[in-house]
Amino acid sequence: MGADPLKNIRVVLCGTAHPGNIGAAARALKTMGLAHLYLVNPARYPDPQAEWLASGAADVLRHARVCASLDAALAGVVFSVACTARTRELAVPMVSAREAAARVIEVARTQTAALVFGNETFGLTGREVDKCRLLATIPANPGYSSLNLGAAVQVFCYELRQAAAAGSGPRGKPPALATHEEIEGFYASLEKTMTEIGFLDPEHPKKLMARLRRLFSRVQLEKEEVNILRGMLKTLARPKPQRSRKSTIVD
Amino acid sequence: MGADPLKNIRVVLCGTAHPGNIGAAARALKTMGLAHLYLVNPARYPDPQAEWLASGAADVLRHARVCASLDAALAGVVFSVACTARTRELAVPMVSAREAAARVIEVARTQTAALVFGNETFGLTGREVDKCRLLATIPANPGYSSLNLGAAVQVFCYELRQAAAAGSGPRGKPPALATHEEIEGFYASLEKTMTEIGFLDPEHPKKLMARLRRLFSRVQLEKEEVNILRGMLKTLARPKPQRSRKSTIVD
Repeated sequence: MGADPLKNIRVVLCGTAHPGNIGAAARALKTMGLAHLYLVNPARYPDPQAEWLASGAADVLRHARVCASLDAALAGVVFSVACTARTRELAVPMVSAREAAARVIEVARTQTAALVFGNETFGLTGREVDKCRLLATIPANPGYSSLNLGAAVQVFCYELRQAAAAGSGPRGKPPALATHEEIEGFYASLEKTMTEIGFLDPEHPKKLMARLRRLFSRVQLEKEEVNILRGMLKTLARPKPQRSRKSTIVD
Repeated sequence: MGADPLKNIRVVLCGTAHPGNIGAAARALKTMGLAHLYLVNPARYPDPQAEWLASGAADVLRHARVCASLDAALAGVVFSVACTARTRELAVPMVSAREAAARVIEVARTQTAALVFGNETFGLTGREVDKCRLLATIPANPGYSSLNLGAAVQVFCYELRQAAAAGSGPRGKPPALATHEEIEGFYASLEKTMTEIGFLDPEHPKKLMARLRRLFSRVQLEKEEVNILRGMLKTLARPKPQRSRKSTIVD
């Protein structure tokens, strides 16, 4: 982890249709001092159109990592922001690009964070959004809020650089945050346990898991907290409660 | 002059080489609520490439005014900002895009203002800059500060919209938050259940409850979330899990 938070941030583009937008995104990253571009199932990559629009950011484009899933792109990430133009009734809380940038930079001073963008036409799917901790939007004209993908990446990266430059005074060592995989593992275990105890009916799940994701996504779970929660679920999964069992939590 | 300052701002593009950038600029304007695009000696206009990139901002593009000189484009304007990537040793004072936007909006509440952008490769000429009142730049990576023209227009228009919105009210009804008593009731129920399942040893509680409080206190729990959590604990407390029980959560 370097001292520069901008170098600890990934920009993840999901299902990008037009290679020109991938090139424009690479350029947007580099102009703002970011370097790590991830492409989840791009329609066309590499492509001369991408290279043309990347202009002087050919290095960022060349080092882009192509992934088969959003989970793969978010491996090792502790804080991820879904960037969207649409207002949604969803899981994850919604903030402005500026506020999201401030929070991303705070995390990225010591750990890895990510911004996630969807397809040009369809945006992010609900399932993709649910994998992120926060939903962010660029305040726009309600009559026409559809920014070009490259332009949206530029605005978010711009806000990241502005946030990084703003009052960089650190305060104390932050706790170790849980990674994407650890949190997804907790959700899987939570869903299984709730089904087993009969609280969640798999045939009529309603929005229970989405609501619980929304709750926990607001917390920024720490590694140790995920361990406690998973420990509780493990205890529940046992056939017989052992009354004499000592708590495993260390003082 | 309308009440909306964004409608009193012109975006002037000087000597644009690529029609795609004109279309992208039109889209950038419209997404941020601006409407007045001026083109000083564009290389190609109108052009299908511009239309394609304008996307849903075809109206802004169609109403763009083509001018033979910057003077013509600035006729009637009382405050003009030259937008540039380059640091210059020049007559005009230099500020950030954010500061420039605040000053433009202040003027545009009652009079006409303009942002002026140069050619993709050469930027604004010294003579063009001298015709403006202020020089503004987007803070960027010193190693590669060259934003795409459309992206630069997007960032400036975004800052204009942010500046126009600053100080205006909230949006949307916030969810009902849980009261102190509701949250304390949840903690009591959580502690009881954890003891019953054997995860918490009352004789050696360690800091388990303190840690869980610390976790949930970061969330700002909503009423409905507390209901869900207490519902789960209630299900656990039953002597026998009823597999067929339906979740009580309403869609």
